[in-house]
This record gives sequence, C-alpha cells and structure tokens, in this order.
Amino acid sequence: MIFSSALLENAVNEFAKLPGIGKKTALRLVLHLVKQESGEVAQFSETIARMRNEIKFCSRCHNISDNDVCNICSNTSRKQAMICVVENIRDVIAIESTQQFNGLYHVLGGIISPLDGIGPAQLTIDSLVERLATEPVEEVIFALSPTIQGDTTIYYISKKIAALDKSRHPLKVSTIARGIAFGGELEYADEMTLAKSISNRIPVENFIVAGS
Amino acid sequence: MIFSSALLENAVNEFAKLPGIGKKTALRLVLHLVKQESGEVAQFSETIARMRNEIKFCSRCHNISDNDVCNICSNTSRKQAMICVVENIRDVIAIESTQQFNGLYHVLGGIISPLDGIGPAQLTIDSLVERLATEPVEEVIFALSPTIQGDTTIYYISKKIAALDKSRHPLKVSTIARGIAFGGELEYADEMTLAKSISNRIPVENFIVAGS
Repeated sequence: MIFSSALLENAVNEFAKLPGIGKKTALRLVLHLVKQESGEVAQFSETIARMRNEIKFCSRCHNISDNDVCNICSNTSRKQAMICVVENIRDVIAIESTQQFNGLYHVLGGIISPLDGIGPAQLTIDSLVERLATEPVEEVIFALSPTIQGDTTIYYISKKIAALDKSRHPLKVSTIARGIAFGGELEYADEMTLAKSISNRIPVENFIVAGS
Repeated sequence: MIFSSALLENAVNEFAKLPGIGKKTALRLVLHLVKQESGEVAQFSETIARMRNEIKFCSRCHNISDNDVCNICSNTSRKQAMICVVENIRDVIAIESTQQFNGLYHVLGGIISPLDGIGPAQLTIDSLVERLATEPVEEVIFALSPTIQGDTTIYYISKKIAALDKSRHPLKVSTIARGIAFGGELEYADEMTLAKSISNRIPVENFIVAGS
C-alpha cells in the first residue's frame, strides 16, 4: 500500500498492529476517524491512553480494576464465601453478563499448558491457595475451558486445595456443568460432550427445579 | 456486557464506535492494549490524535495530505497534464499501489447519488472544472465505480468538460476499461460485465502490446 501522507501511513500502521486488524481494515478505521470531529478523535485517543496508564489489577482476585481492589471484591453485598476460578478477564465479563453469579472471582491469567510454556508458576495459583487459606471461603467453582489444559489446571489446583489444613473449614469444590449447549442440536454435538452429558445426567426433578 | 472497571468500559465503548467493530472485538483490542508496554499505547494514541489534528486536504486535488499541496501534486516528475478522477482517497491509494499511473489525481469526495442526497454540489466537481480551465491538462481519466451512479457522474462531468472553451487546448477524456477481471472465470461474470467486455473488445494486436 502506497500512501501520499506520512501522518495517514503512521496511523494506519498503528491500527494494523492490533490483533485481527489488517492494513485494509486499519485504513478504513483511520479514514473514518479523519471524517470525525477533532474533539471526538481526541477523546478516543485520550480514553485509550488514560485506560492504559491508570488501569490496575485487583490485588485480591487479579481482575482488571480502577483501584487496588476491584469493584467486585469490594462489593460487600456479594457472597464473600464463594470464589469462581476463571482463566482471564474476558471470562469474568462473560459470567458477570449472565447476572447469575453473586460471589467473587479469581483470575488465573491463563491455564496450565506446557506446550505454550505456561506452568503453575506463571499463573496466580499461589495467590488463590493463599486466599483459600486466609479468607472465609466455603466454595470454589472452576469455570475453565473444557479442554485437556483446563482439566489439568483443575486437577493441579484441587491437589493444592486438598493439601490445605482441613481442620479450619470445609471447602466445596465444583466445576461448571458440561453438556449440550442450550438450543444445541444433539446430532451435531461432538462425542466427548455427548458422552459427558450422559455420564453427568441430572435427575429430572432437579432439572425442573434448576430450570424453573 | 458488564464491566468491573469504568476505564476498561470507556475504552471498549470508544473502540466500539469505529465502523465494523462490535463490543466483543473492541474488548479484545482493549485487552490487547492492556498487555502492551505503556509507551507503545501512548504512541498509538498520540499518532491517532496527531493524525487527526495535523492532516489536511490538498487544496489542488483534495487528496489527504500532510501539507497544503499533497506529495503527488507537488511531485514535478509526475505528468501534470494527466488527471485521474476518483471517488475517494482509498481509490488514490489503490491506484498508487499498482505503480502504473504517473499523473495527478482529483478526488471527488463521492459520486452523484440522489438517493443518498449526494448531488454535484456536495462533490469537488467545480474545483475539477476550474483545474481543467486553468491547468495545462491534456487528458482526463475517470476511474469511478462501474455503477449507475458512477456512469451518471461521468456523464455529468463530461457535459461540463464539453462546455469548456475548446479553443484553449484539446482534452482527451477516457474511462478505465471494464471487463472480466484478470484471473476471473467467464461463467461467473455477470451479464452486464460480460456484455460490456464484448462490446468493448480489444484487437488482439493491441492486447498483446498492452499485456507485454
């Protein structure tokens, strides 16, 4: 692509550094911004710069946060005894958007994946075990990807949890249900999912209570 | 989507204002920026803000430019007697990238499209006629979209050109060739294109010279 303006070219190159944005898309975005009011573009660039400079990670759950402790952790109306363990910040947003979970989170920052060079030390597992040892937690829910890596991570952390001093408090550990997605067609489900959904079958009386 | 951070939410909303970027893509882009070095994000935002504040439109051809007259117009090694009329800046970049055209451009800023409320007054047609009357132009090439609107625009401007004082200089007016795209399959071409490519057929001796 040959540009007649260096300003335009630099802006296109900056956008094209973003994931999934090629040169053509970057050009479309930049030409859109050229047409906008100067104030709106200034607001765009200031919001991005400010976000990067001021954003923090919650010292308790490692979620993205405006303060040292995030809104979720500092919200006293949430169940402090329930921790949902997730892979990343996107998962927190996805679960929050369901408005079905009223406990706290713990963001691992990834899952154990030796092929990608991610071991337990790269994740916030120690911080989670520390929380379980010191906070009045009663239940841990794993909401990790249903993959081998997700299962490995659950297995590794459960071992750590089992090693905790059990005299302190009983700890329920669960993982989110795996099965056929709502609205999904049975015949298109893969074998593993279908097999899991049969072995984890739910008595209909429970199902009706849960679904109602 | 429910965010636990206002900084994150504002940044996502700003990205989601861009065309073709939904909330999920915006979130992906913002989380990517969160992971980048602070300096890189500052550079991103400064480049965008600077581009919007400093960019100009060439007073001669209305192309995007760093100065009052763009690099193309001020390049004396280009043929000043040849003007390629295009719809927008993207078309200039597309034609420049072919490295086959060595004249000047004129960016109309759109094409005549009454249904979209775009008439000749919204375009830089007067400025083009003014250029043809005052500059030593010998040839005008229309490189507009092969649509009814494109054809209408060509017709309208040709009428204006025909009304120019012809005693001054002769003016060749042409439009880019329309036909089957290179590598295209004949059977998938639409009827209009195929019909045009038959009526505008090229003697093989010219074709070989042009293609060699």
